[in-house]
Amino acid sequence: MSPSPVALPGFLAPYQRRVAEVLERALPPDTAEPSAVHRAMRYTVLAPSKRVRAVLAFLSAEVCGRDDRAGSVAAAVELIHASSLILDDLPSMDDAPLRRGQPACHVAFGEATALLAAFGLLTLAFEIVTRDHDPALGSALTTLLARAVGRDGLVGGQADDLLATDRAITFERLERIHRLKTGVLFSAAATGGAMTAGASASQLAALSAYAKNLGLAFQIIDDLLDVEGDPAQTGKQVRTDLKKTTFVSFSGVEGARQLAGELCDTADRALQPFGARAARLRELSRFVAARRA
Amino acid sequence: MSPSPVALPGFLAPYQRRVAEVLERALPPDTAEPSAVHRAMRYTVLAPSKRVRAVLAFLSAEVCGRDDRAGSVAAAVELIHASSLILDDLPSMDDAPLRRGQPACHVAFGEATALLAAFGLLTLAFEIVTRDHDPALGSALTTLLARAVGRDGLVGGQADDLLATDRAITFERLERIHRLKTGVLFSAAATGGAMTAGASASQLAALSAYAKNLGLAFQIIDDLLDVEGDPAQTGKQVRTDLKKTTFVSFSGVEGARQLAGELCDTADRALQPFGARAARLRELSRFVAARRA
Repeated sequence: MSPSPVALPGFLAPYQRRVAEVLERALPPDTAEPSAVHRAMRYTVLAPSKRVRAVLAFLSAEVCGRDDRAGSVAAAVELIHASSLILDDLPSMDDAPLRRGQPACHVAFGEATALLAAFGLLTLAFEIVTRDHDPALGSALTTLLARAVGRDGLVGGQADDLLATDRAITFERLERIHRLKTGVLFSAAATGGAMTAGASASQLAALSAYAKNLGLAFQIIDDLLDVEGDPAQTGKQVRTDLKKTTFVSFSGVEGARQLAGELCDTADRALQPFGARAARLRELSRFVAARRA
Repeated sequence: MSPSPVALPGFLAPYQRRVAEVLERALPPDTAEPSAVHRAMRYTVLAPSKRVRAVLAFLSAEVCGRDDRAGSVAAAVELIHASSLILDDLPSMDDAPLRRGQPACHVAFGEATALLAAFGLLTLAFEIVTRDHDPALGSALTTLLARAVGRDGLVGGQADDLLATDRAITFERLERIHRLKTGVLFSAAATGGAMTAGASASQLAALSAYAKNLGLAFQIIDDLLDVEGDPAQTGKQVRTDLKKTTFVSFSGVEGARQLAGELCDTADRALQPFGARAARLRELSRFVAARRA
């Protein structure tokens, strides 16, 4: 039995259900060996989550004409995201006890199993995109996702973030950290999804611009919820970022929410070439700007 | 300045030099951000090593007609191998202080940076094989390498190995662990190298059988050296495996060396279709069977 999904605005619910289906298909059963690792993988991936990255992959494909082949990208970005959450929460990283409303993976399964689950999830993402698509698309998606994980993506962002703890940093550096930790994978979700629909170069550029700004807004709201939220709603320990410089420490609560709103407006402007077809993507950015949990 | 390579039999030295070149090209400079992570990646990958997996990729390509495109596979298997060494040595795993004749990565750089280096190396392997080859080959190599890392490869083997510590296991289970931890990546190195030479299905099958047996022999000799060796030669702490069941605890020192010799003979028999062209691969297996460090 899977935990219930986190509520998204009504029209997004069907996408969330599709994400649940593709994730169930992507993940190995916990009866298969190594079962402890598979249980840890499923525990983290299938925990309640908004699935914003996966939904973004589906919506970006749809706005380019078809979303029936976007499931592999939707699954892959969620697997990669879950892998990075396991890593970030480890004692040697952010040492976070709680994630998605439950004990963090290493707390529930031990560090060794959590590490293997993180490696297993990352690897599975590459296996899926090359297995489910023709070689040209599989190869292009592998390059896209590898870059989103590597030095110009999650790995680079987490390295910067660790250096930034307990140290005064500039606004520009903070923005860079969040671009790498969040914006790059948002962008890969959108462009990867669109690639499965045979998007043109200009469509990919527009969606990348949209997703980058949306990702940054999403992260700013995360910072806000860390200050304002309670763990029952955010699913993780709050006020852990007090020792870190965040967008809230630069701009205050009101300023941060305003900044997130402006980034979502910028995101929406990038959608202009799609006209009315991008209505759902615009609704997604309104949801991100306004979210309270 | 890179440390000097570990000596291989004379004819293999040029291959080792080519491996050093492809690794230098593959790795990001440690001046680029995130520099601490890049230093940790280079530190582990470029430390003295026999580079057996990479050499196997070149020799397998060569026996299929051309080895000029095998560099990416040679680099990728060494990056993946180094990534798994960083992971295996962590305190929550084997807690090994020494590797390749120097402090283990997490000892030298701290756990957080070591983890990011491991993730960075794994990801870089996929980036390289899709960047350096046409889509059909890049996609096929991604699938091959992802499977060699996942549940039926390194992740599965390390999970089994952790469970096996401090517990009596059967000979069959021990063989499975070493097949997953060593044999599968050896096999991927050989078949991946051969794929860059346009190998036929029967050539790939022969090389896979050769490499699987060679990998198992290699691991048995590793067990032996853990009992017999000194750290100056093996480059890692010895007698750490005393609490583990190894091939030596099943078969004794003499029995284990004999078993390794038999596996190398089995490996060589798989090379029959190649006739005299496989002379260098046969020399590699003789080296593995006889190695003392």
